[in-house]
This record gives sequence, C-alpha cells and structure tokens, in this order.
Amino acid sequence: MNYYIILYILGCVLKFESAFLLLPFLVGLLYHENAAYSYLITAALCFLMGMLLSSKKPASKNLFIREGFVTVAASWMVMSIFGALPFVISGDIPSYVDALFETISGFTTTGSSILNNVEALSRTGLFWRSFTHWVGGMGVLVFIMAILPLMGGSTMNLMKAESTGPSISKLVPHVKDTAKILYGMYIALTLCEIFMLCLFKMPIYDALITTFGTVGTGGFGIYNSSIGGYSPEIQIIVTIFLVLSGINYTAYFYILSFKFKEAFRIEEVRWYFLIFFSSVAVITYNIRGLYQSFGESLRHAAFQVASIITTAGFATTDFDLWPELSKTILVVIMIIGSCSGSTAGGMKISRVVMLIKTIKKELSLVVHPREVKKIRMDGHVVNHETLRNTNVFFVIYFVILLTSTLLISIDNFDFTTNFTATVATLNNIGPGLAMVGPTRNFSIYSPFSKFVLMFNMLAGRLELFPIVVMLLPSTWKRK
Amino acid sequence: MNYYIILYILGCVLKFESAFLLLPFLVGLLYHENAAYSYLITAALCFLMGMLLSSKKPASKNLFIREGFVTVAASWMVMSIFGALPFVISGDIPSYVDALFETISGFTTTGSSILNNVEALSRTGLFWRSFTHWVGGMGVLVFIMAILPLMGGSTMNLMKAESTGPSISKLVPHVKDTAKILYGMYIALTLCEIFMLCLFKMPIYDALITTFGTVGTGGFGIYNSSIGGYSPEIQIIVTIFLVLSGINYTAYFYILSFKFKEAFRIEEVRWYFLIFFSSVAVITYNIRGLYQSFGESLRHAAFQVASIITTAGFATTDFDLWPELSKTILVVIMIIGSCSGSTAGGMKISRVVMLIKTIKKELSLVVHPREVKKIRMDGHVVNHETLRNTNVFFVIYFVILLTSTLLISIDNFDFTTNFTATVATLNNIGPGLAMVGPTRNFSIYSPFSKFVLMFNMLAGRLELFPIVVMLLPSTWKRK
Repeated sequence: MNYYIILYILGCVLKFESAFLLLPFLVGLLYHENAAYSYLITAALCFLMGMLLSSKKPASKNLFIREGFVTVAASWMVMSIFGALPFVISGDIPSYVDALFETISGFTTTGSSILNNVEALSRTGLFWRSFTHWVGGMGVLVFIMAILPLMGGSTMNLMKAESTGPSISKLVPHVKDTAKILYGMYIALTLCEIFMLCLFKMPIYDALITTFGTVGTGGFGIYNSSIGGYSPEIQIIVTIFLVLSGINYTAYFYILSFKFKEAFRIEEVRWYFLIFFSSVAVITYNIRGLYQSFGESLRHAAFQVASIITTAGFATTDFDLWPELSKTILVVIMIIGSCSGSTAGGMKISRVVMLIKTIKKELSLVVHPREVKKIRMDGHVVNHETLRNTNVFFVIYFVILLTSTLLISIDNFDFTTNFTATVATLNNIGPGLAMVGPTRNFSIYSPFSKFVLMFNMLAGRLELFPIVVMLLPSTWKRK
Repeated sequence: MNYYIILYILGCVLKFESAFLLLPFLVGLLYHENAAYSYLITAALCFLMGMLLSSKKPASKNLFIREGFVTVAASWMVMSIFGALPFVISGDIPSYVDALFETISGFTTTGSSILNNVEALSRTGLFWRSFTHWVGGMGVLVFIMAILPLMGGSTMNLMKAESTGPSISKLVPHVKDTAKILYGMYIALTLCEIFMLCLFKMPIYDALITTFGTVGTGGFGIYNSSIGGYSPEIQIIVTIFLVLSGINYTAYFYILSFKFKEAFRIEEVRWYFLIFFSSVAVITYNIRGLYQSFGESLRHAAFQVASIITTAGFATTDFDLWPELSKTILVVIMIIGSCSGSTAGGMKISRVVMLIKTIKKELSLVVHPREVKKIRMDGHVVNHETLRNTNVFFVIYFVILLTSTLLISIDNFDFTTNFTATVATLNNIGPGLAMVGPTRNFSIYSPFSKFVLMFNMLAGRLELFPIVVMLLPSTWKRK
C-alpha cells in the first residue's frame, strides 16, 4: 500500500473542503449570523491539515486499484469528519455523532436527517448542509480529477472507483477532459434549475438549496414540509429537474454533440422512463381517493416517484399514509434507483437490466442447452468481468441489507422501520417508511445504529466495493 | 417437448396419490367419520385418471432437462389439484382456492395455513393435511424414481431437478439406489421420532401428525397452539428431530457407512450448527425477560430457531411478541434455511456459503489482481457452472421476493405482513410475522394473493428453476 500518495491526495481534498467552507461563511456574514465564524474556523483547520498532509510530494505516483479504492473511501470519510465540525461549533447540532450522520448524509447525497426541526437551524447551517449535496453529487473526486494532472500519475483507477454504475462509457479518451465535461453539464443543469425556480418566484436562497438537493439528488430541505409548502408550479419544475438528474449523463453528452440517435439508443435511459411512467400511472390510480382532483394525485405521484427513483428523497406529501401498494412500489424503486452515470444512488437500472438478462439467458440455456447466447447492452456484448462484478455487487448489496437490518433491530423498532431505514440509507434516498417516514427522522436510533446507517450511506454512494474492501485485512497488508 | 412421457409420468404420480389417499380413508373409518368417503372418492378419481394417462407407454423414453423440469413442476401441481378435492367434498374447507392453498402448502412442506380454527377440522382431514407433508417431504419424485426403472429411460435429469440444493453428491452411482437409500433413512428417522414421542406419552395419532410435520419439515399441527400445548419433554424431542431433519442426508449416509471423518468434514453441516447455536444463544439472551427461567427461554429459543431454520414452522410460543432483534434473526434464518440435501427449504446454507466465498474471492481479486483463487467446498473445487447457477438462483430469488411482496401489497396489509408472508411461503416455512404470525393465518389474503403465495411455495420447494422455466414461452415451443 502506497500510504504517501493516499495522504497526499487527502491533503488536497482537505484544501478543497476549506475553500468550500468559505461559501457558508459568506452566506452567514450576509445573514449576520454568528454561526458564520464556525465555518471560518473549520476552513482554517482544513487548510492547515491539508497543507500538512500535502506538503511532501510522494516519490511514487503509481495508484493501483487498491490505493484508488482506499483513497476514495478515505476522502469521503475525511470530508465528513471535518465537515461535521461547524454544526457542533455553532451549536446547530450539539452532538458530534448526529452532526457526522447529517454530514455523511449530505456528502453521500442521501438526505436522511436526524433533525427534529429543520427550521430551527441557522441559515448558514442549512446552506452548508445542502451545499454538501452539491459537492457530493458529482463526486468529490471529479473535482480532484480535474486537478490531479498536476501529479501526473495514472488517474484511471480513481475513475474506476468513482464512476457511478458499471457501464459509464468513456466519453472522451482523457479522464481529465471527461471530468471537465461532466462538471460542465452539472453546472449547466444547476444554473438552469436556479433560473427556472427564480422565474417562478422562489426566493434565491430557497432556489439554491432546492437546486443543490435536486441536481445532487440529495433531498435536504429547509422546511419541515420539504417541498410541500411551495406552489404546484415549483413542485412541477422540481419534478422535471429530478427526472433530468436521474438520466445517465452520457445521454446529455450525445445530445450536446448532436448524436440524438445514440442518446435514444441507450437502453438504460429507456428503461428508466418506462419504470418512471408506469410507477406514476399505478400510484396515481392507487391514491386517487386521497386527493381532490386527478391532477393533484398525478402531481404528488410524479413528484414522489421522481424523488424516490432518483434517490433525492424530497417530499410534497406524507407518502407513508398512502395505500400499501403505492408504498411497496416506492420501496421497489428505492432499491432499483436511477441510471448509472448519474448523481443518483440505488442499485442502478443498468445493473438490474443486466441481472434480468442473465436470468433469461441462463433459463433459456436450461431449455435449449446447445444455444450460445451473449448478453448485450446498447447492442454491445457485455464482457464477462462486468457481469461477474454485477452479480457480486448484487450479493454484497443483499448481505449488507440483511446485516444492517439485523444490527439496527437491536434498537427494537418495528421491521418496516428498520428495513426501510436500511434501504433508504444504502440507496442514498433519505426518508424511509413508518418511523423514518417523510415526516419523521433518524434521531430515534442509538449511536450504534447511526454508525451502521452511516456505513450504509458511504457503501451505497461508493458502489459498495471501495468501502467493503476497507474491511478486508489483506487490503492493509504491505506485501 | 416430449409430451407423451410427461403425461405418462403424471399418470404414475396420480396412481401413487390414489394409494396415499387410502390411508386417510382408513383413518376416517377408524374414527367413524363421514369425511373418510371423500378420500375414497378422490382415490378412485385419481386412479382412473392415472390409468387413463399412463395407459399408453410413450415411444421415446428420453427425458431431457426441459421435460424433467416440466414433469417435476406438473407433478406437484397435479398432486395438489387432486389432493385438495377431499377437503372440499368433505366440507372441511368449503372454498376450493383455500383447499388448494392448504394442499400446496402441505405437499411443498410449507405449513402456511388458511384455517382460522384448525381444531374444527375432521380427524381424517387433519391426517391427510399432515400426511401431505410426509409425502412431499422427501419429494414425490423420489418415490417415482424408485419405480421409474420399469420405464428404463434416463432418470438422471429428474434427479437434477428434484435434488434439493446445489451440491448433493451422488451417494451411490445409480440413481435408483440413491433414492432407495434416502427413502430408507427418511423412514428410519420417521419411525425413531414416532417411537420417542410415544415413549413420552404422546397419543399415537398426535405422534404421527407431529412426526409428519417434523421430518417433512412442514409444520402443520392439529392444535391452534401448535406444539405449545405439549409437555416440555415432547417439545425438546421435536426440537432434536427438527435439527436432525435439517442436516444434509449425505452426512447420515457417511455415518451409516462408518465414514465419520467424511461426515464431519461436510462444511455445510458445520455452518448449519454454527448458525443454529449462535441464533439460539442471542435469542435466549434477548428474550430472557419474557419467560420465568433461563431454561424456559432456552427451550423456546431452541424450538423456534430449529423450527424456522428447518422451515418447519411449528411454534411453542407466539414469537411475534418477541423483541425486534429476535424477530429479525428469525427472518434472516428464514431466508438462509437449512442444508441442501435435506427436506428443508430456504436458500440453503451451501448456497449462502458459496456466495460469501465468491464475495471474498472477488474482493481479494481487487486487492491482489494477479492472484488465482478457486472456490472450494469440502476441499473440492466448485465448478464454474455450479457457481453461476448459484448466482442466478440468488437473483431469481430476490426478483420473486420483491415481485411477490409488491403483488400482494394490493390487499393493503402492512409491509411486515406482506414481506414475511412472501418469505414464509417462498422458503416453505409456514408462519410469518405480524398478521401472518404464528397465531394468525393466511386467510386474510384475497384469492389473487393466495395464488401468488401458492406460486411462491411451489417455486421455493422446487428450487425455483423448474417453476420459473414453465413461465418461459420458449419452453413450450416444439422445435
């Protein structure tokens, strides 16, 4: 293990975090809140720590997968550990465990909260909380990758660990350029949403917060009613931007380069829309009795499905009161999630599609043993390694799902609460059902369970492998 | 598809069922119950139908995997369709859908019931209900396999479809002999338990019923309190025989041939005991406040764990009232199940162990990419096909789990009920939690949901593939 390069990169990450922390500091000054200074203090601390760690350039710039995974996992942890400090210093969240939970939930774009009353937080704190979504959304390491060239080493392995989902195709040959393009599209989407929200008379502060939660698919809000208090128009805009945020960014790249055919040929995106529209249709019908008009049912159904499938976790209504069928559909799409190559979480549609294709292939092999079939995605044969990885991902996913549900059941809440709390954190959604439903929060759990759920959030955000590999003793052997 | 041979075998199956039906008829005569005659009528019907189907010997005796799978699946369905008739004719269970549910639950050794009051059933009906466990337990087709030689065709494919679990090693080279040996051990275990139960003063009728439910790992009882009304000694005997029934029968074969070393080298069996004892330990500690003494807690914990891990589903206490940790442990062992090569259901321990080994192998490949590792079970390298099958099994399992939970959620019961109803049927356990807990039953569900749950029971019992293959259109193409 090349510890020098890991520490060096962590140093860089901390320097970036120190820069990010200046933004809430400015917001705090603007609102004349004392909380502002806790961000300045933390920024200084991050800067000093960052300088210390990155002072010595590592001799070897080689980064193998092992180091890549550890670096990614450690970056998210270090970001969160420092990012939680201002909440404690300002007194917004007095308990450090709670602050850490909230910050991990932010950077992993989960949106699960331990706050009983969001509205009691300082404006500065609320801004930082949502800004972590935006930072996390695209992946801290996409930032780093645009800067990494100054190190010159191979960045490909970092890309492998960071890219969300199994099938992100290399947009352009150079990783650095890829990162820049993704980053550009992300900013464009962000600015579009802010503009649209302001156009429909949302205050700029609210528009920023909402946008951070939408494009980062995080879901932290500033009102106890989440998005429920805003006008129907605003809710519709957020729905649209949520749906846009769940699409594989490769599609946008194709559209931007006028390759419309290629964009529409992406199987995953077509499945995404199929799942989205069929879920909305069934839920709209299922909840028709609960709202005054068809339009209102449709609006709430579309918003909630968009919010859950993209794993944002915003809410416009308390879906825990919906009929069981609608709630179970939400649980299923919680698990599936959106497209790989987006900021959303979950298992990812491409994985699910690949698994279904594997089933079909293996079953038809039983029936016609001499047939030779290959699994294809977007017309291309999927290589053996990807399929094996997908299978292993699936197994690990369910092992974590069951283990986590078991561990947090020690707190003695009901099964629905524990199961959906696990699903909501592992898939980076935000709210679950029952006692962790959209109008409740995660403060009920013991510190032990909170750590389990934090593990879920990190594991889910980093596509399981980097975090799980950290648990293997052999990862830490020098060899 | 060679339909002739399928129909011929189904004819044989029906002739056997007609013989089985004479046993409850005799029991009915003994108790002077009118219900007896409904069994005689059904037996006659089965015999006639069987004669009709098996009258024409098929020209080709070749049985490919496809036909093997369809035959197995169709046999269980046909057995159940006819086996449900006497319940309706005698008036014990007036609704045919309910009677079919109960019979499928019997033959698949599930033990889920739709009866609100078991004690209201005729003694004849209760006998048949439990006897289906015994018949189903070893697999209808093990019977058939001991007789199939009169057909002369290849029986190996049937064996492949029928053998429970992925790793049953061929005990002796000839399938026919294998079947006889398994059958012999099964009868020996049955007689032992009946003897022991009678020794501790259980009435012979009760002893038969209880034994059928134990060695068949079914779990139908004749009292609303299941086994709770019997003495602690009886409960302990049942616990022991439950644990014995969950062991891979290969172990008994080794022991009978004085190969003790081999018997103790079976990894799956060691894991089985590890899971059993650790679950009992944690639950005993967790429920210590609910019972008067440590001994009582231990007895209830051991009984319930044995009953759930072997997927029998008997109960001595209402475990739905236990703390959430204990209940979640039960849900987890419901999913894992017992050893392959036993009459129990669930995913099977060997599969779970193989999946865990696959995870470890793939993760250590990430860390040490140049390492070459093979997955071993009992010291032997597991071949690629078995691993792939295990992976596919796992994916299909969870697809069915989620789909079934979703479909039955239409009835609008809570998530815990729907989820555990699915797990309880798919793993052939019997009771679930909440509204399908040990003191409740499945009568609450609509006919549609009952059919979904019947599908689960059949799919789970037949190791998924034979039933799922029936859903593929290509299975039915002549080609």
